[in-house]
Amino acid sequence: MIKISREEIEGFEKRYRVQLINSLPGVKSANIIGTKSKNGIENAAIVSSVMHLGSDPALMGFIQRPTTVQRDTYENIIETEFFTINHVNSKHIAAAHQTSARYDKDVSEFNEVGLTSFCNDVFYAPYVKESNVRIGLKFEEMIPIHINNTKLIVGSIEEIYISESCLNEDGSIEFSNLHSVGITGLDTYNSIEKLKRFSYAKPKIKLSEL
Amino acid sequence: MIKISREEIEGFEKRYRVQLINSLPGVKSANIIGTKSKNGIENAAIVSSVMHLGSDPALMGFIQRPTTVQRDTYENIIETEFFTINHVNSKHIAAAHQTSARYDKDVSEFNEVGLTSFCNDVFYAPYVKESNVRIGLKFEEMIPIHINNTKLIVGSIEEIYISESCLNEDGSIEFSNLHSVGITGLDTYNSIEKLKRFSYAKPKIKLSEL
Repeated sequence: MIKISREEIEGFEKRYRVQLINSLPGVKSANIIGTKSKNGIENAAIVSSVMHLGSDPALMGFIQRPTTVQRDTYENIIETEFFTINHVNSKHIAAAHQTSARYDKDVSEFNEVGLTSFCNDVFYAPYVKESNVRIGLKFEEMIPIHINNTKLIVGSIEEIYISESCLNEDGSIEFSNLHSVGITGLDTYNSIEKLKRFSYAKPKIKLSEL
Repeated sequence: MIKISREEIEGFEKRYRVQLINSLPGVKSANIIGTKSKNGIENAAIVSSVMHLGSDPALMGFIQRPTTVQRDTYENIIETEFFTINHVNSKHIAAAHQTSARYDKDVSEFNEVGLTSFCNDVFYAPYVKESNVRIGLKFEEMIPIHINNTKLIVGSIEEIYISESCLNEDGSIEFSNLHSVGITGLDTYNSIEKLKRFSYAKPKIKLSEL
């Protein structure tokens, strides 16, 4: 193994550093954030930073990059207070990746990339119809990360759409037939395959496989 | 597809809700955080919330659960200012999962679960020798998430250990032979398999596969 120091990282050419540092966490969830501007323009944006924050209350979040480079999603969430999180499906990875292009604010990425928006009567933000797991959230909090001018956007879960056949008896989602993908680095899409599921861990007790 | 409402989520039995909500983001990275107390006791703790925060400066973070339920890692980071992030390898998923058991503060999870700690002369926190990607970080910031009493812990990257053969020419990590795994839900470990890598997306330009 080689060791790369802080000084070497700082000296790397920018794109090399971006590729490396984005690869470091390992596999990341692939989701499309759906929003709609107050003028009714729908927006879809792929993100690899969606996270679980808590179950009671049920909260999720994602990292918003500096709004100098990317801001339609952020402005829509702040103005309308609603957004959706939609799993990227392996059948639609090219369309999902294409949402990362910088389209003008008055353009709907749904139309441009060929994804289908799906709305119900009560929820303002659009879902991605091609997704097998869709989550509707109400904006709760914008937490600034001052060190690099990013933000943690926190939402509470208002509704979940999921195939009933993908819900295990214990509430966990069965990913085997879901076709949800993961992202490594900036641009690589991966399928996932179950290795093992383990029991709740306790000191001095041998794990069992579930 | 079925729709699950906020009221239904709030009414679920606690463990069912925890399983469901933890499954919602999709696949999450599997990493072990390595720390050492000021008294020299090493600690290893699996987390599924490690995230990329930025490349310049090179920053990573993770979500710290309320310290009423889990605090050795947090206390060590605050007191010593250093921690490591280590990819969970498919060959060691049982040991990695076992680090989630609540061991006493004076017990080293490395010894209890059978992982090997690895230190160099200058870095205070221990690495996991079994990991193929190991990252040494200096604590930068603790950002409280008041809505549910969790915290975002931010660190800057001081050093990276990686197999040179897993570094692509452009700086991205090649995951094909790395054996890093992803977590779905609370307790399910998954291998990842590359589907496609795409070019940088621009409006009106067809994506190419890399």
